[in-house]
Amino acid sequence: MDLPKHFKIGIATLALLLLTAKGQAQIAQDITHDQAYTALLAAKEKAEESKVSVNIAVVDAGANLKAFIRMDESFLGSIDVAIKKAKTARYFNIDTGKLGELTQPGGIIYNIEHSNGGLITFPGGIPIKNQEGQIIGAIGVSGGTIDEDRTIATAGANSIIDGSN
Amino acid sequence: MDLPKHFKIGIATLALLLLTAKGQAQIAQDITHDQAYTALLAAKEKAEESKVSVNIAVVDAGANLKAFIRMDESFLGSIDVAIKKAKTARYFNIDTGKLGELTQPGGIIYNIEHSNGGLITFPGGIPIKNQEGQIIGAIGVSGGTIDEDRTIATAGANSIIDGSN
Amino acid sequence: MDLPKHFKIGIATLALLLLTAKGQAQIAQDITHDQAYTALLAAKEKAEESKVSVNIAVVDAGANLKAFIRMDESFLGSIDVAIKKAKTARYFNIDTGKLGELTQPGGIIYNIEHSNGGLITFPGGIPIKNQEGQIIGAIGVSGGTIDEDRTIATAGANSIIDGSN
Amino acid sequence: MDLPKHFKIGIATLALLLLTAKGQAQIAQDITHDQAYTALLAAKEKAEESKVSVNIAVVDAGANLKAFIRMDESFLGSIDVAIKKAKTARYFNIDTGKLGELTQPGGIIYNIEHSNGGLITFPGGIPIKNQEGQIIGAIGVSGGTIDEDRTIATAGANSIIDGSN
Repeated sequence: MDLPKHFKIGIATLALLLLTAKGQAQIAQDITHDQAYTALLAAKEKAEESKVSVNIAVVDAGANLKAFIRMDESFLGSIDVAIKKAKTARYFNIDTGKLGELTQPGGIIYNIEHSNGGLITFPGGIPIKNQEGQIIGAIGVSGGTIDEDRTIATAGANSIIDGSN
Repeated sequence: MDLPKHFKIGIATLALLLLTAKGQAQIAQDITHDQAYTALLAAKEKAEESKVSVNIAVVDAGANLKAFIRMDESFLGSIDVAIKKAKTARYFNIDTGKLGELTQPGGIIYNIEHSNGGLITFPGGIPIKNQEGQIIGAIGVSGGTIDEDRTIATAGANSIIDGSN
Repeated sequence: MDLPKHFKIGIATLALLLLTAKGQAQIAQDITHDQAYTALLAAKEKAEESKVSVNIAVVDAGANLKAFIRMDESFLGSIDVAIKKAKTARYFNIDTGKLGELTQPGGIIYNIEHSNGGLITFPGGIPIKNQEGQIIGAIGVSGGTIDEDRTIATAGANSIIDGSN
Repeated sequence: MDLPKHFKIGIATLALLLLTAKGQAQIAQDITHDQAYTALLAAKEKAEESKVSVNIAVVDAGANLKAFIRMDESFLGSIDVAIKKAKTARYFNIDTGKLGELTQPGGIIYNIEHSNGGLITFPGGIPIKNQEGQIIGAIGVSGGTIDEDRTIATAGANSIIDGSN
């Protein structure tokens, strides 16, 4: 292989760094399935209090589906909306409702919904943090009004922060 | 598995709830193919009266395609629009035109169209109810003006409610 | 509209059939979210016994996602495999492993996997029946060996048939 | 552009033909919705005779969906299989079962199923010809055994050739 000189130096420097590094991996705190379940049950309980039937999705730190439940009589169309809300919240580490304020016509990230196979940018998706404040996943809720969805998702996310788990 | 205390209680509570539940199955009323046909023919008749050529789709309670017809000379692009209108109407148990009022810029569910592989949120999709008022499917019409599409879809849906079948 | 004579007779016959029909709706028994949860927990318990980490998905009678859990350390690629196994089992009311016997090269339905956005036709997907023997949904498991996946899925499905719920 | 000599002659001949042609458009004989309906009903009648519940799809000369019916209790997974059988039959103007003989491992068009968003290459898809022998569309049937599906599809296609319509 015939590398340009400056590139060879780059590799040498990298090799040096690696030799002296303590070998620490990137540490991503990730939600466990017990935590995902806890968030799901807390959200479901809040939904039942509010007498609304919803879909609830939890994704992990990699934005991959971790847990899901569709309550009886909830909208079929909310399966995908709940999952996309959870993914969107983790993709950008943000309350999906906040993101939606930036995606309106004239907004700075207008129509970002076209990325990632479709985003949902109205309330109901909330990042899930651990007690140290690190984002470890996200929860998405769909089936009620947007205010109900946000309240239910928040209840789910808070069940982890609160350390009750 | 070493579950946190809170979670164990959650499962115990769930188990208790399940034990005391009466084990009632969820009964979903579903459209029959004779009803789907009746709705299709009623819609087609209305379209012919209105001298407009349309695509007509009927989905069942699970939002799965049940019956479809494309009238001669109707738009090819309306095949998918009619099917998506029917699915959207069942996904959210709503007149697709009503849904569209909420998805405009600034609307509370702006850009929900990005979910479920693409929704159609202008008029022409209508839930189909049985005579007891239960939703058993939906009909979607595309090819005319949105007013024509809505009128034709409504004629199809009403043919079931009216109990002519 | 100027219909050919044969077609007019067809419609007349259809109308007659509809008039004489007893107007019976099709009644689909559908899995409840409590049942879906029960199946999920039974499958998870079996997986823990077998010391294998899996993804478990439950779909309803309409093949729509009802409940899901990914156990810690289970494959990310198994999320979609588990969901597709559950859907495939309900799409054709069959153990996915049995279906796979027919889709091999030279088999009578070789390459059916290309339909429905992708099927999974090896063991791990099982229809869920109620105590009356009616199919009300399906369960899909992925993450272990195919034998483990099938055993775990069966444990989930049996928890409903057994009437423990 | 440096064309080979025989190709230049081809163009010259073509130019001559165009000059003397009467400006006739390409004439594609296309199935009407009445014919599609006729084929659908003939297939449904045959299915009822055979006491099998199937999905039946008819596509036009452009391989676009023209008519569809799912009989009660037929497999949900057969919706897409029936449509893909009809499309496949028209894409290559062939009985889908015949195509499948060529797509087996070692076959001359092995794995062509990966094209066109997914083909189905086992029996049940049949081109529909008019009385002049021109292909005007295709019919696809799914839900029975492959022999039943082929027989039912053939009954549908024959109802047009036979000129009963």
